[in-house]
Amino acid sequence: MSQLDAETIAIGTELLIGGRSDSNSLFLAEELGKLGIVVRFKSVVGDERQDIVAAIHAAAKRAQVIVMTGGLGPTVDDCTREAVADATGQRLGRRKDALEGLTARLAQWGRIPNTAQLRQALIPSGATVLKNPVGSAPGFCLTWKQALIVSLPGVPREMEEMVRQEVLPLLRTAYESSGLPPRAPIVRQVFHTFGLAEADVDAKLLGLISKRIPVDLGMLASPMGVLVSLTTKGSHSAPEKQRDLLQKLANEVRSRLGEWLFAEGRDTMEEVVGRELTKQGLMLAVAESCTGGLIGHRLTQVAGSSAYVDRGAICYSNRAKTEMLGVPTDLIALRGAVSKEVAAAMAFGIRERANVSVGLSVTGIAGPGGGTETKPVGLVYIGLDDGTGRPIAREFRFHGDRNVIKQRSSQAALDVLRRWLSK
Amino acid sequence: MSQLDAETIAIGTELLIGGRSDSNSLFLAEELGKLGIVVRFKSVVGDERQDIVAAIHAAAKRAQVIVMTGGLGPTVDDCTREAVADATGQRLGRRKDALEGLTARLAQWGRIPNTAQLRQALIPSGATVLKNPVGSAPGFCLTWKQALIVSLPGVPREMEEMVRQEVLPLLRTAYESSGLPPRAPIVRQVFHTFGLAEADVDAKLLGLISKRIPVDLGMLASPMGVLVSLTTKGSHSAPEKQRDLLQKLANEVRSRLGEWLFAEGRDTMEEVVGRELTKQGLMLAVAESCTGGLIGHRLTQVAGSSAYVDRGAICYSNRAKTEMLGVPTDLIALRGAVSKEVAAAMAFGIRERANVSVGLSVTGIAGPGGGTETKPVGLVYIGLDDGTGRPIAREFRFHGDRNVIKQRSSQAALDVLRRWLSK
Repeated sequence: MSQLDAETIAIGTELLIGGRSDSNSLFLAEELGKLGIVVRFKSVVGDERQDIVAAIHAAAKRAQVIVMTGGLGPTVDDCTREAVADATGQRLGRRKDALEGLTARLAQWGRIPNTAQLRQALIPSGATVLKNPVGSAPGFCLTWKQALIVSLPGVPREMEEMVRQEVLPLLRTAYESSGLPPRAPIVRQVFHTFGLAEADVDAKLLGLISKRIPVDLGMLASPMGVLVSLTTKGSHSAPEKQRDLLQKLANEVRSRLGEWLFAEGRDTMEEVVGRELTKQGLMLAVAESCTGGLIGHRLTQVAGSSAYVDRGAICYSNRAKTEMLGVPTDLIALRGAVSKEVAAAMAFGIRERANVSVGLSVTGIAGPGGGTETKPVGLVYIGLDDGTGRPIAREFRFHGDRNVIKQRSSQAALDVLRRWLSK
Repeated sequence: MSQLDAETIAIGTELLIGGRSDSNSLFLAEELGKLGIVVRFKSVVGDERQDIVAAIHAAAKRAQVIVMTGGLGPTVDDCTREAVADATGQRLGRRKDALEGLTARLAQWGRIPNTAQLRQALIPSGATVLKNPVGSAPGFCLTWKQALIVSLPGVPREMEEMVRQEVLPLLRTAYESSGLPPRAPIVRQVFHTFGLAEADVDAKLLGLISKRIPVDLGMLASPMGVLVSLTTKGSHSAPEKQRDLLQKLANEVRSRLGEWLFAEGRDTMEEVVGRELTKQGLMLAVAESCTGGLIGHRLTQVAGSSAYVDRGAICYSNRAKTEMLGVPTDLIALRGAVSKEVAAAMAFGIRERANVSVGLSVTGIAGPGGGTETKPVGLVYIGLDDGTGRPIAREFRFHGDRNVIKQRSSQAALDVLRRWLSK
């Protein structure tokens, strides 16, 4: 064994078949990565005792750190406690410190534990109780064979706090006492681009990373653009050396991606344009046809957006375009509602009527119906008017279903705004 | 062995650490369930050859059907082919039928396979090639020990078509030749409620299902409401008997949930209200403050919504409420922008100005800032005006972060509309 590898096991039948996806494991991968521990396997298993036992046994063969989430609730369905006891040959017993924590938490909520809730104080013998600072179910951890098994509640807010307050310190100690050489943290740096195809991004980054550089280059295309990631491989090189290398590569990525790079890390397009509008003291109004309110929704996802978003007009019908924005009926008749000219007129109209610094507009055909030979589904025009008499109107041709075309259109509109703001 | 159990293995480092979640496995669980095959484990593993081998070996111990997705692309990262060959002790060789399919597909796109793409024709010896009717990468399947191993591309559209056209017929044959008694399909029926807490839904469904009934009752709370599911357990009982039982239970669920039940199956709230607006020949206009366009966005996610959505006003500023909707400045000064009265005035204003049958409005405090002692974050008013002079204005108090409050507010508004439409 030259390093600690981890496996996450998410427990819950809803995760297996119910349409809910396991988001906890992504948080765990990031947090464990900070200690240089690589999550190499993720498992999902239903609320079946013998299946959880099988998952623990499989994990113990390939990972030294096993983090389980879910199945610690008060109902009979919740059988992670029993499964861990079975898998490790321990007995379950009601633990004093677990019971005290549980009782204290419920008391805060003005309740006393009922029989079902008392089950949550059952802990395998030999395990250490992990306090839950948010909810009622305590977690626990124990060592079995070569592996450290950690069991946490599945509620993200509870799990995350417990990882920060209990699990990470514990793992740090386990790592130190393992005698293994310290490893540099796994660092992942993310870059968001819009407007380039994945193949174009690939071409721009060609030759950036040679085989012997311990950094992985990742790429992921979505309707919102192509995401580029640099991830350090688990290595024993000094953290500072690794940080310097990553910084050098990140600068190279920035310079190669240039104007197509719109954000880094957790930043979103709407946050980027919001910050810039605030900085420049500008007020924005939007006029949306095919996006149906999505641009307004995205802009107002950002706390404090009322400081720079004045209003939006969702003008789905032609009549609405004329009545709400003053787009001439003649122009719509002549050029069609989906045209460069109407996009420009919409941006002008919303800016004038709202009396703000900048107006942004979208008109297009989201499909699946409504397309013609000359104006196919996916044809979208973005307009921007800043009152200088030099309106922007750009044509886009998107592929995908209705939702994808709406998403891409909203992103394209915000990107037109971003580029205008950067001038 | 009394039944066929399945495990899915999703391959890709992005799925492990990159923020992308594995949606293929949910589709697979549903499709395999139709044959009575239960997916009991889901695994996710990165693009590491030895890790994929370990995942296959673990899966083969606990499942008779193993469906792998991903890692069949042309790049060096894609090493599922090699891993399956390693795991099963087979050799990889370029297969004529795989090569022909690949070449034919690329020819359709006006291209000839390059060296990287030729790798996609490598197939473990003894495996059957599975045609890809959508993309270039063929899949394959082979039997190893007790397990049938199926390997498919990770692109959902390709994977789904291949499951329908190739994998399901194959599994049906495998099941028939296994000598196992036929099993009833796993059927999952879903009910969507809004307006009740999870505990209230639980109370309404108390005693619905006794221990000996082979149906699982599931519940899942989200900002959009509480989802209730009935899922048949894998059983050998006759499909008709099971169907009758499920139907009886479903009727009981419907009657107990009553007016709180807004949709079933894959139906969404926006589809439900859209159908009803169409049926009643009504045109709708919306006025949104705190939801910022989300209601408009959701309504226009439905294809054909231009038939019943005329327009929307996103009036984020008070000035916009007055200018776009004619809400009196005095009323805003007297009652506040977040009030029953302003909600009613907004609904009236948008209906009048759009000259449509019904106006729907939302005003509230999404937070995190902007709350006061009397008007806290999460306070939301929904208005509806149908021109009868009897406007609806309802108060809601939501908890959660900005996004959750926006989501809940949009759902509450559409639910107010749904209830009005059902009168």
